[in-house]
Amino acid sequence: MTIAFIGLGNMGAPMAHNLLKAGQSIVVFDLNKAAVDELVKAGATAATSPRDAAGKADQAVITMLPAGAHVKAVYEGDDGVLAGVAPGVPLVDSSTIDLLTARHVIETAGAQGNPMADAPVSGGTGGAQAGTLTFMVGADGNLFETLRPILQHMGKNIVHCGGAGTGQIAKMCNNMLLAIQMAGVSEAMALGVKLGMDPKVLAGIINTSSGRCWSSDTYNPWPGVMENVPAARGYTGGFGTALMLKDLGLATEAAKQAGQPVMMGGAAHQLYQWFAANGHSGEDFSAIVKLYSQQD
Amino acid sequence: MTIAFIGLGNMGAPMAHNLLKAGQSIVVFDLNKAAVDELVKAGATAATSPRDAAGKADQAVITMLPAGAHVKAVYEGDDGVLAGVAPGVPLVDSSTIDLLTARHVIETAGAQGNPMADAPVSGGTGGAQAGTLTFMVGADGNLFETLRPILQHMGKNIVHCGGAGTGQIAKMCNNMLLAIQMAGVSEAMALGVKLGMDPKVLAGIINTSSGRCWSSDTYNPWPGVMENVPAARGYTGGFGTALMLKDLGLATEAAKQAGQPVMMGGAAHQLYQWFAANGHSGEDFSAIVKLYSQQD
Amino acid sequence: MTIAFIGLGNMGAPMAHNLLKAGQSIVVFDLNKAAVDELVKAGATAATSPRDAAGKADQAVITMLPAGAHVKAVYEGDDGVLAGVAPGVPLVDSSTIDLLTARHVIETAGAQGNPMADAPVSGGTGGAQAGTLTFMVGADGNLFETLRPILQHMGKNIVHCGGAGTGQIAKMCNNMLLAIQMAGVSEAMALGVKLGMDPKVLAGIINTSSGRCWSSDTYNPWPGVMENVPAARGYTGGFGTALMLKDLGLATEAAKQAGQPVMMGGAAHQLYQWFAANGHSGEDFSAIVKLYSQQD
Amino acid sequence: MTIAFIGLGNMGAPMAHNLLKAGQSIVVFDLNKAAVDELVKAGATAATSPRDAAGKADQAVITMLPAGAHVKAVYEGDDGVLAGVAPGVPLVDSSTIDLLTARHVIETAGAQGNPMADAPVSGGTGGAQAGTLTFMVGADGNLFETLRPILQHMGKNIVHCGGAGTGQIAKMCNNMLLAIQMAGVSEAMALGVKLGMDPKVLAGIINTSSGRCWSSDTYNPWPGVMENVPAARGYTGGFGTALMLKDLGLATEAAKQAGQPVMMGGAAHQLYQWFAANGHSGEDFSAIVKLYSQQD
Repeated sequence: MTIAFIGLGNMGAPMAHNLLKAGQSIVVFDLNKAAVDELVKAGATAATSPRDAAGKADQAVITMLPAGAHVKAVYEGDDGVLAGVAPGVPLVDSSTIDLLTARHVIETAGAQGNPMADAPVSGGTGGAQAGTLTFMVGADGNLFETLRPILQHMGKNIVHCGGAGTGQIAKMCNNMLLAIQMAGVSEAMALGVKLGMDPKVLAGIINTSSGRCWSSDTYNPWPGVMENVPAARGYTGGFGTALMLKDLGLATEAAKQAGQPVMMGGAAHQLYQWFAANGHSGEDFSAIVKLYSQQD
Repeated sequence: MTIAFIGLGNMGAPMAHNLLKAGQSIVVFDLNKAAVDELVKAGATAATSPRDAAGKADQAVITMLPAGAHVKAVYEGDDGVLAGVAPGVPLVDSSTIDLLTARHVIETAGAQGNPMADAPVSGGTGGAQAGTLTFMVGADGNLFETLRPILQHMGKNIVHCGGAGTGQIAKMCNNMLLAIQMAGVSEAMALGVKLGMDPKVLAGIINTSSGRCWSSDTYNPWPGVMENVPAARGYTGGFGTALMLKDLGLATEAAKQAGQPVMMGGAAHQLYQWFAANGHSGEDFSAIVKLYSQQD
Repeated sequence: MTIAFIGLGNMGAPMAHNLLKAGQSIVVFDLNKAAVDELVKAGATAATSPRDAAGKADQAVITMLPAGAHVKAVYEGDDGVLAGVAPGVPLVDSSTIDLLTARHVIETAGAQGNPMADAPVSGGTGGAQAGTLTFMVGADGNLFETLRPILQHMGKNIVHCGGAGTGQIAKMCNNMLLAIQMAGVSEAMALGVKLGMDPKVLAGIINTSSGRCWSSDTYNPWPGVMENVPAARGYTGGFGTALMLKDLGLATEAAKQAGQPVMMGGAAHQLYQWFAANGHSGEDFSAIVKLYSQQD
Repeated sequence: MTIAFIGLGNMGAPMAHNLLKAGQSIVVFDLNKAAVDELVKAGATAATSPRDAAGKADQAVITMLPAGAHVKAVYEGDDGVLAGVAPGVPLVDSSTIDLLTARHVIETAGAQGNPMADAPVSGGTGGAQAGTLTFMVGADGNLFETLRPILQHMGKNIVHCGGAGTGQIAKMCNNMLLAIQMAGVSEAMALGVKLGMDPKVLAGIINTSSGRCWSSDTYNPWPGVMENVPAARGYTGGFGTALMLKDLGLATEAAKQAGQPVMMGGAAHQLYQWFAANGHSGEDFSAIVKLYSQQD
């Protein structure tokens, strides 16, 4: 039984490695020859195109790509997955992409007899390497049960979000909320400190009160409040501002398509856009606190 | 040893009752005669003015009033607390008020030899009745230790926030963050549902992900997601929109005084102002979700 | 000399009529047979496809379509304009569409030897019928001079915005600003009236002060302030909320692509999204004032 | 006939000078001795307190002060205007202050028989010196007619806004709208330029389109678009960011008191608060464009 894995970037490469470690036979493709060679050294077989890789897979095809345009090209191109894959082989796209493209590709795949799931992840490159990613899976129940054991080689939390497309929806809703909270925690901490409170005391009160949230009790953006978070190491590592900005763009775009207002999400989007445009796109997303604290 | 308790509204009356139940001797004052009679029946002594009440207290004076203007009048008026209280008797204002007034009254009291703490509460009328309020206390260490046993008759969580004024700061920072999160959770839930997700599944995913927060996992605003929350009973009970709007007004006002920007807090303030102005001020603050879900 | 005109909707049909009235020979195409028949009765020739229409044009091809997807299909489809048009014939797209699509089609056309301009309009169906539209033209200088006499048959203001694509940019920037101003005027008027001012007096003061703008002095949203504006006739006619929402979507999308923050534009976008989602998409965009005035 | 003039700051001093130049007899007061001396040299009489100044005035008392707290003290203090002024002498406060204080002082003055008007100005120190200020006057019709000839010595536009308090309302509504527009023009200009347009061409199009406004056609914030505006001289002179921030604070505070939502006004307030907190409070308010253009 062979799995095709397409897209060997920062996330995809360690994910494919984890499949190998679990004893899976895999065939890989990426435009980056070095990334392919690395996997081949570890036991994978190289393919010459997405179509070639998919044609050699009888268990599943997994893709991990930067954006919707890549997903569309890798699946629907002349040398794409759909042109090569055998009927019935399940497909999984773990990219975080726009909902319209996700739904379109899933529909096209289904129409030619390939059940397809969207399964974006959270956990970052650290989680990809450790095999502790969370997969948010949009798939009908049977397909989910088929895919679960495969995804468990790469992640520790395999969440069934509902039918096709719901993986993307769950991730974008969670991350939009996360951005709102991180900006909110930043404002509350900065306001309290400006008014004279000790930041650790304030965080402690929030964390046992109704303002409690992951951005405050697990990932506090204020330097000196917690150890082992990006704020404790100059906002390096973690979940980059550029990625958060991308997810906010996906969420507000989906909201636009659905005619759904997102006032707070829209405000957070513009704040992150401002922050990224002013030289902070490479920092962890909790660095947004600088917007409130770096003043004269 | 006698405690004066001034301000017998929805919050103050049950708090005073709890002092009586704990065996404390108390003297009470309120302009509302019926509220005073009720306490007298339960064992309290009635006073004729804040000055009279304060003059009869040798253990502490506690006030619980609607807004800064009341606090200023009750403490600094001709018939006020400061005119009647003996030197050294500690003062506690449990009202939630603007920081400028809180700091001014504390300073005036201190100047005449009465140490004073600000100790706003959270927990609502339910917590006031059950004696399970959280007190956020701004006071120096000695004063805090003096007051703690008294406050424990009325609350279960007595939090030391720092020096004078920090009780108000902690409460306004927490509640501004809470409003941001509640609006954020409302948007994320509404967006997910509009895009086709099951609300319970979405809430479950958020609650185990980085979007986790009290507004989602303990007080979810979407009907049908949780039991025993305002969303399960038509947004009755709980923490009223009018009170949240008041707290947002205090937070943005303090931010203005401090020259501290609060973009997300300001946006939440205006959303709650809109919501209150459109007939919802009597509903629980989680009803803000209607802004996103009641559409054609 | 013959012009092809493709897209005979509310805007396109009267524009094509005005070309006929000016003595131009035109060939038309639309999927709507009735719209084509109407033009044929007036002297136009019917074509069987965009390709067919373009093939019969030696002077210019003009298109007027609802969105980027239609423009892409009409130009780049198998039966599209680019497949039929002779080398050198200039192309004009008067649709208001996203910048990415506009630039892509212009580039493709240029690569096969057809100079192409984007020329979105303002002025609405009234302006289309009266031949008083404003055309915002993105084209190099020679192309602009070639097109100007043609566009003058349909509009009275033919503005040269710069090179290809700048027509779309100018329109989206202007309309984003317009939405911000209309919401701003609505807030200022509603606040003043709520505080006790006469709306006509307030508008008069604003119109002679630094708050002066088209939304206040020419198109005031408050009922009773001006005659002959949508506010005077129940917000019918004019420039629809749905169209303003579309333009805000194009502007915020272009800002996202360019990494440019638009905090006020983003806020206006979400307000219009809320307003449209609550049943007002068919009303003139100045009806946004209801958001601030229809209260309990 | 003598006029008392109290408050000889940047605005008040040249206003008082203009009264002298017009041949008026004036008595002046300010805590700043040098400012008083300057006026005395020019022909004014010095008073020892607001009470003293008011007692010597039989034609009118005019005040020009920084904020509501000063106005309250100058009128209602033991040595204040109301303690010294003769019955029937009209009072004019030209300060820009919060509505609550304005209304309170006007009411108190009226109760003791002194008709009082609020008459905040626009036009800045340049207008004060040149005698070209705009006065926005809240007063009943008779009082307005009494005051008009006096105010005309200091301004060229004497606008009757309605009854007492409406001067403050008109000014705060206009200036809130102005801030929204200035931020909006800044975003539209920055977006257009980032997308490739020439700023002068873009401004020209906006100025003849529906985005036209004073902030664009008279005071454009983009450097190089206009001459003789702050943008052409490094944002010096003009109307300072700190003053605009103060006016936004007054407007959002009045909106809070009235329960009136101001989403765009609130957003503009926070943007200016951020801008001032980051070192720009001394620059002209059109410098807000830097928020959008100073990027990496």
